[in-house]
Amino acid sequence: MEPSVHHIWKRLSHRLHRTLILPKRSNSGHPEHAAVSASSHSRCIKPSLLVSRLYQPSHLRDVGQDSRLAGEMTCKSQMLMQQAGLIHPSNPGCYYYLPAMVRSMEKLVRVIDQEMHEIGGQKLDMPSLCSADLWKTSERWDLMGKELFRLKDRHGADYCLGPTHEEAVTTLVAHQANLSYKQLPLLLYQITRKFRDEPKPKFGLLRGREFYMKDMYSFDVSEEAAHHTYRSVCQAYMRLFARLGLRCVQVNADTGNIGGTLSHEFQLPADIGEDRLLVCGDCSFSANVETLSLDRTDCPQCKNGKLIESKGIEVGHTFYLGKKYSHIFKASFSNQENKPTVAEMGCYGLGVTRILAAAIEVMSTEEGICWPGLIAPYQVCVLPPKKGSKVDNAVVLAEELVHTVGEAIPHLRNEVVLDDRTQMTIGKRLKDASRLGYPYVVVVGQAALEETPKFEVICQKTGETTFLSKEAVLDLLGGVETV
Amino acid sequence: MEPSVHHIWKRLSHRLHRTLILPKRSNSGHPEHAAVSASSHSRCIKPSLLVSRLYQPSHLRDVGQDSRLAGEMTCKSQMLMQQAGLIHPSNPGCYYYLPAMVRSMEKLVRVIDQEMHEIGGQKLDMPSLCSADLWKTSERWDLMGKELFRLKDRHGADYCLGPTHEEAVTTLVAHQANLSYKQLPLLLYQITRKFRDEPKPKFGLLRGREFYMKDMYSFDVSEEAAHHTYRSVCQAYMRLFARLGLRCVQVNADTGNIGGTLSHEFQLPADIGEDRLLVCGDCSFSANVETLSLDRTDCPQCKNGKLIESKGIEVGHTFYLGKKYSHIFKASFSNQENKPTVAEMGCYGLGVTRILAAAIEVMSTEEGICWPGLIAPYQVCVLPPKKGSKVDNAVVLAEELVHTVGEAIPHLRNEVVLDDRTQMTIGKRLKDASRLGYPYVVVVGQAALEETPKFEVICQKTGETTFLSKEAVLDLLGGVETV
Repeated sequence: MEPSVHHIWKRLSHRLHRTLILPKRSNSGHPEHAAVSASSHSRCIKPSLLVSRLYQPSHLRDVGQDSRLAGEMTCKSQMLMQQAGLIHPSNPGCYYYLPAMVRSMEKLVRVIDQEMHEIGGQKLDMPSLCSADLWKTSERWDLMGKELFRLKDRHGADYCLGPTHEEAVTTLVAHQANLSYKQLPLLLYQITRKFRDEPKPKFGLLRGREFYMKDMYSFDVSEEAAHHTYRSVCQAYMRLFARLGLRCVQVNADTGNIGGTLSHEFQLPADIGEDRLLVCGDCSFSANVETLSLDRTDCPQCKNGKLIESKGIEVGHTFYLGKKYSHIFKASFSNQENKPTVAEMGCYGLGVTRILAAAIEVMSTEEGICWPGLIAPYQVCVLPPKKGSKVDNAVVLAEELVHTVGEAIPHLRNEVVLDDRTQMTIGKRLKDASRLGYPYVVVVGQAALEETPKFEVICQKTGETTFLSKEAVLDLLGGVETV
Repeated sequence: MEPSVHHIWKRLSHRLHRTLILPKRSNSGHPEHAAVSASSHSRCIKPSLLVSRLYQPSHLRDVGQDSRLAGEMTCKSQMLMQQAGLIHPSNPGCYYYLPAMVRSMEKLVRVIDQEMHEIGGQKLDMPSLCSADLWKTSERWDLMGKELFRLKDRHGADYCLGPTHEEAVTTLVAHQANLSYKQLPLLLYQITRKFRDEPKPKFGLLRGREFYMKDMYSFDVSEEAAHHTYRSVCQAYMRLFARLGLRCVQVNADTGNIGGTLSHEFQLPADIGEDRLLVCGDCSFSANVETLSLDRTDCPQCKNGKLIESKGIEVGHTFYLGKKYSHIFKASFSNQENKPTVAEMGCYGLGVTRILAAAIEVMSTEEGICWPGLIAPYQVCVLPPKKGSKVDNAVVLAEELVHTVGEAIPHLRNEVVLDDRTQMTIGKRLKDASRLGYPYVVVVGQAALEETPKFEVICQKTGETTFLSKEAVLDLLGGVETV
């Protein structure tokens, strides 16, 4: 708790000395009823922007102490996300994504869309049900073993639930009649739910059985062009992580069952990471240990540097596939001489739900979530004083502030919530706010009632608390980037 | 083809008298290369906004004549959507949604989000894998029969792929500790892929096995409050269809295997519709024939009117569920006396992919797609003259127009495409444009080269063609609504 807030908090009176004018739901709780019974201010604030109305635990608890969930707790991000009501466990390795989480995920999806669009990516959406025939053609039906969820339809036909879509996309492109070299490179991607029957799902969203992934597939006229596309995607990935403020290392990687001859992983260094990386102290070289002989300690690139081991969470993976799939499924285009030519392919994955969990894992403390600002569920939380306190007429000013921010800064209109749980102390609500991770918290208290009203603004990133006039608050928040 | 365009088209020369300055991809086709080799104008136009670069059939054909697909053709919307490259068939009842389709679907999702948000809906995302235990508890594991896709995980545990999520959402809310009456009504919804093993998938996206659905679930303090919520959702559905310009009828419906005591369907009248409706000629009464005795011809509401039969495509369905699921799964809240009370529920579905197909079905002709303007994949297509024609220096003006519209009308920035396939005649490209369904097509030809440049604007909705100055074009397009 910030000292200044503590100061205000200590002065809070617990006497109920007048009826609270904050928006109250009628018993039936309908917005129409509420609008009639509530003050003129509350009409400006949508129910979805009142903390009391958000679907999340009404009092954030330490879920580590909750016996129902304790057995499954395995890492910080999972604990924080369950505690904050971002996720709720379902079947092993499957989670409900609750409203605040969906907001963050949709923001992350928009950032990914922007970066993919920037390099010419076109978004499509492929079926989850993949026919066994397709996977038998690529021989992955057997190769994938138990990781593949398999099922039969009512006619007895075999399907799997797609964990990745090389087969599906390649056969799609193969059916594109008259594909011309002029249409290449073709970069097709989707952001959809994927399925993988992990033997031991763990670490919450870091290793689940049902998750969201962005998978992109590229088709090029030549190996050279395909390498160019490959680099362009890797650069887009690095830009993406930079925009999120996440330190990411691009390491040489094994190609696994996807195949191909060139592969990189995008790793966020973290103790919980399941991947072991070797990073050169002298040059840019870095690699997954899988790709090196086990006892190697000298750098194969600069020959000088010593390799230092660290752990990482894999958040992206790129593969240059060559003609592995395009040959099998006959994905070809007409070249300049109008001759059918097999396309060169690459595939590129980003773990969408995994990035969210990994970001929380590496940026947060045990006490609360710190988000990459751009994708925080909400940017600002405004805290009015406790009901019945000496300064509770500042409640109106808090509502006005929410309204003014929405009017003055259109891109923050749905980004500011009012913590109207004024039966709780400022201190308790501040603790909740820091657990949920709002980039900015504005406390409206004593200082807001003074002749020159001041608002106490806590910036999560810097940890700084400042008292600002309304204009200065608007100035500060006007600079907040959203997506 | 419009007469005025025909006039221009006839005058087109086929001689190639200079190098085309339209953006050309280099052989390797990379954006970086293109920027170097292309004109200054083309740099302003993203590859994704050039028709030649869009992932769609390079020449739209009548797929009815395509033997590979002919066997599966069953209705107008399916034919039009395949022909335009919106969808591509995969397994029976499963489709690839191609880039233009994904754009429309994302727009429709935004409209749905807005309307759900407006009535206090909060978006979440539930797992597709639903445990058999949950479905056995509600007895639907047996009741659903072969419509349920079933599978086992590697440990032999039984799952189904959720076609709907009453069980999942009710058990989620049941796990919400200390849910208070103050937090109700609670409206939780998701827009996700659903699975249903249809015996005979048909009519493209109208009856598939894998599809997108918006499913919302409401929790209320009392029957009265639940009815209020029910009406509020029905009103939101009617507003949604009104915004899309779709005539929708809300009819009394059977509750089927979902259960409950009150239900409505939202039907778009259409010959292809699988539902039979009876609509009163005198009053507002309308019902699915399933809910009435078969030989009934007089209206049960006004007693006077005669019931007229029509066919409809069901695009939405609402159910008042009472305590059916909340009782089984113990979803309760603390009432004003702090006593645990079982919540009253409702559930509300919208077929997202089905709305797209149904809209095309009812609004389009056999010749081409007419979209609800708000959710058309792109709002405007600009057609430069044919390469080598007498007026092909107007190409620059077409590129400039795309650029200017993007600068002057920010909300249209990614909504204007340039049909740079200038090896094709204006006539052929116009035909493609009318098949794809752009609300506005702007032909840049002879008139654009005159002293007061004029652009030929074709409005799909009114069918009108007008010659407008650049300012008038910007004025007209500035009024186009987007989402």
